[in-house]
Amino acid sequence: MPAAESVFKKQLSSTFEPASRLTASDLNPHALNAKYAVRGRIPTKAEELRNQLANESHSLPFNKIINANIGNPQQLDQKPLTFYRQVLALLQYPELMNHQAVVDVLPKDLIERARTLLDHIGSVGAYSHSQGVPYIRQRVADFISKRDGYESSPDDIFLTAGASTAVSYLLNLLSLGPQTGFLIPIPQYPLYTASLALNNSTALPYYLNEKDDWSINAEDLVKIIEDAQAQGVEARCLVLINPGNPTGAILKPEAIADLLTVAAEYGLVVIADEVYQENIFNGQFVSVKKVLKQLQEADGSGKFAEVQLASLHSTSKGISGECGQRGGYMELVGFEDSVRAQLLKLASISLCPPVSGQALVELMINPPTEGQESYPLYKQERDAIHEALKERSSLLYEAFNTMEGVTCQKPEGAMYLFPSLTLSKKVFEEAAKVGMEPDEYYCGQLLENTGICAVPGSGFGQVEGTWHVRTTFLAPGTEWIEDWKKFHAKFMEEHQ
Amino acid sequence: MPAAESVFKKQLSSTFEPASRLTASDLNPHALNAKYAVRGRIPTKAEELRNQLANESHSLPFNKIINANIGNPQQLDQKPLTFYRQVLALLQYPELMNHQAVVDVLPKDLIERARTLLDHIGSVGAYSHSQGVPYIRQRVADFISKRDGYESSPDDIFLTAGASTAVSYLLNLLSLGPQTGFLIPIPQYPLYTASLALNNSTALPYYLNEKDDWSINAEDLVKIIEDAQAQGVEARCLVLINPGNPTGAILKPEAIADLLTVAAEYGLVVIADEVYQENIFNGQFVSVKKVLKQLQEADGSGKFAEVQLASLHSTSKGISGECGQRGGYMELVGFEDSVRAQLLKLASISLCPPVSGQALVELMINPPTEGQESYPLYKQERDAIHEALKERSSLLYEAFNTMEGVTCQKPEGAMYLFPSLTLSKKVFEEAAKVGMEPDEYYCGQLLENTGICAVPGSGFGQVEGTWHVRTTFLAPGTEWIEDWKKFHAKFMEEHQ
Repeated sequence: MPAAESVFKKQLSSTFEPASRLTASDLNPHALNAKYAVRGRIPTKAEELRNQLANESHSLPFNKIINANIGNPQQLDQKPLTFYRQVLALLQYPELMNHQAVVDVLPKDLIERARTLLDHIGSVGAYSHSQGVPYIRQRVADFISKRDGYESSPDDIFLTAGASTAVSYLLNLLSLGPQTGFLIPIPQYPLYTASLALNNSTALPYYLNEKDDWSINAEDLVKIIEDAQAQGVEARCLVLINPGNPTGAILKPEAIADLLTVAAEYGLVVIADEVYQENIFNGQFVSVKKVLKQLQEADGSGKFAEVQLASLHSTSKGISGECGQRGGYMELVGFEDSVRAQLLKLASISLCPPVSGQALVELMINPPTEGQESYPLYKQERDAIHEALKERSSLLYEAFNTMEGVTCQKPEGAMYLFPSLTLSKKVFEEAAKVGMEPDEYYCGQLLENTGICAVPGSGFGQVEGTWHVRTTFLAPGTEWIEDWKKFHAKFMEEHQ
Repeated sequence: MPAAESVFKKQLSSTFEPASRLTASDLNPHALNAKYAVRGRIPTKAEELRNQLANESHSLPFNKIINANIGNPQQLDQKPLTFYRQVLALLQYPELMNHQAVVDVLPKDLIERARTLLDHIGSVGAYSHSQGVPYIRQRVADFISKRDGYESSPDDIFLTAGASTAVSYLLNLLSLGPQTGFLIPIPQYPLYTASLALNNSTALPYYLNEKDDWSINAEDLVKIIEDAQAQGVEARCLVLINPGNPTGAILKPEAIADLLTVAAEYGLVVIADEVYQENIFNGQFVSVKKVLKQLQEADGSGKFAEVQLASLHSTSKGISGECGQRGGYMELVGFEDSVRAQLLKLASISLCPPVSGQALVELMINPPTEGQESYPLYKQERDAIHEALKERSSLLYEAFNTMEGVTCQKPEGAMYLFPSLTLSKKVFEEAAKVGMEPDEYYCGQLLENTGICAVPGSGFGQVEGTWHVRTTFLAPGTEWIEDWKKFHAKFMEEHQ
């Protein structure tokens, strides 16, 4: 090969003043404005400490990092459900089904299931329809029809890469700029504020009432909508997270009906983030779709006929916990065809959601049933995961309520607790010295003393002057809960 | 359960004028402006015909649809590489490795490979680092270092869900509005114009020279940049697709060096879409990174030191053809840390790319090597796919060049041919009658008469007054090529 000097002679001899490279300040200001706390300063510090432990195992007052900052069950000890993984393995390498030895160790219904999926999918390595494999959409529609007692159509189902993709399409399509308002709960999952910043739209925060089980007051919503209108911002979307993240609360059907009444009157598109619908510990999950259909059925005047609802689900949470597989779906209810066509176009620009993730959606919503060979193990694994989550949520809840200055609502659903902290003047001063919010400072101290990584409430939003911590209850064992109690007592003593 | 009437008494009795639902005209105008031809009118019609055939198999003059519209190898007859799928099956269900019968039928190096990946990944069901699993990023960096002879760092590698995600992040971050210009080749892969429309930025088209093997003239670029500047549009990005989609042409190193010289002078971020780097039939692929490093090394003045390059690769194309698995990577060269941090933030809002897709990237860039048990089958399958593509590309090329009024450049790379059509006045008239572009009309007739679905050049952009068709050469067999020849002869006769 000839030397570069001779090949590129012309270019090398050309004379010009080279331009300098871009810095962050040259970039899209809306992208710069987006913040995402779940992977923010405390989790970044936790990564550093994890690396430090890997290199010098005794250099810190703990021997491992407890990731209580993110709902990532399989990063901790939660095992995937065998049934899911067996089917997914067969979809990746269908030839396994031609080996008698393999067939001998797998349940028969499972092999049949894999064959049916393959018949409809073809190869998991081929692009599917951008809206998702039609057969899987039909199965999702069947699941919803059965869950709610109201019909669902595969034309209204979009399979997605987790719920985040659905949020991204919806917010993008609904945003016209700062004059478009999105009602989002506070505290909230920061995906929403981050996506609104990206779309240069306006967040209209509505506060959840911590004292009343994180409830929502419909009259507050009306006031926010009308105040926004007076300032030139048109509310066009209402985001509900049910069960709540980070609150862990479940909305009652009457509360949902109140919110739908506001949506009907003000023409709000309702985004129902229902990804925790399987994580129920106390109470009962009722979908927004079901309440809407009940209202429509019972109402003679057609007041609820035009309500537009997008309901989201995911394989990442629930008992599945298959975050890395990026599966999910969105159901549209009451949308105009022309709007749905635009959503399909956005989906088509990303080509298609991961096909094995689509298959996983089918497995999640259509699990083995009693009498099938794969049922007993499935049931046993599923119950064990559910029980462990429930037990740890109670233990953690009880622990918080024994801690000085901490109050915590009883866990109902999701994967989180969001206790409130009463912090002393000294904490405020120490936090200010290091340029942190008081709850961020608390989380920093918790991390450095125990290895427990939790996220400060300031990353999710909270009533001014209140302070919180969001923690998952996914981490295995209970020793870390004891460590937290000890840390807290010492912290309170040192910051009197 | 009590009746809805009694539960929702308050809501049902509330009186208000319900708002009406949204129509497309209420939506984000930038989203409405985005067009995406690969899944546009002709492919939609093909879907309808496919359904018609499924219901009434003899109702059309053909018995199947030939999808030549999209680079989706496994939708057609291309089989996945066994090695990839065996490893992915083990990652989904690692328990298989504990069954002696399974272990007995799998190559030993493959099992070791799966174990190593699992050690680093943990579970494919857990979220990974948003930038991708560190180990896999290291392997990608090693691959690039070896390919180019210049060092690459895992800190500069982002694993992505196909190349589209990388394009989406980059265009979003670089766009400041209509005053930001992106130089894109015409014809182009319509992902770029669609993403620019979404970001409300300005496409600055540069035409590829069909007569000179779809080459790029650097002087044309300079003129476009300066003309744009005069109109208040700042060019800040240059998109290169190499090997070309839809053209199938490969850029020569000297041509790349010319383009990098323009980028250095005008401070353009270069996006090198190199997803077809394995699909080489005539000529040789040299990466933009390699040419940039050669220029930097040979240049004493530092003129090329500040060039910013993002190079994209994917598991969807090449010999893999694993589109549905959504794997890919982006390498950043020369970016400021502050800019990279913003890209990471965007990635973190989507949580992480599909983890099994990340593993597939590792398998693609680090295939079995001679002496390993899995090598012979891998090599045999790989060579067969490559040969079949090469053979069909030649057959199709030859067929086009026998057709009246058709000229076609010799295929060098990628998966496409983009022949030029000389169409008669009668075609123009017939097309106008049905509200189509002439080449769209041709594709519509081709589809309705033969079942072959190809995309008109108007979806990719073309010099005004010229007409093209883009077709893949992925469809199995050669009969469809004969069908196309017969159709063309008849079409030309009927439209004299």
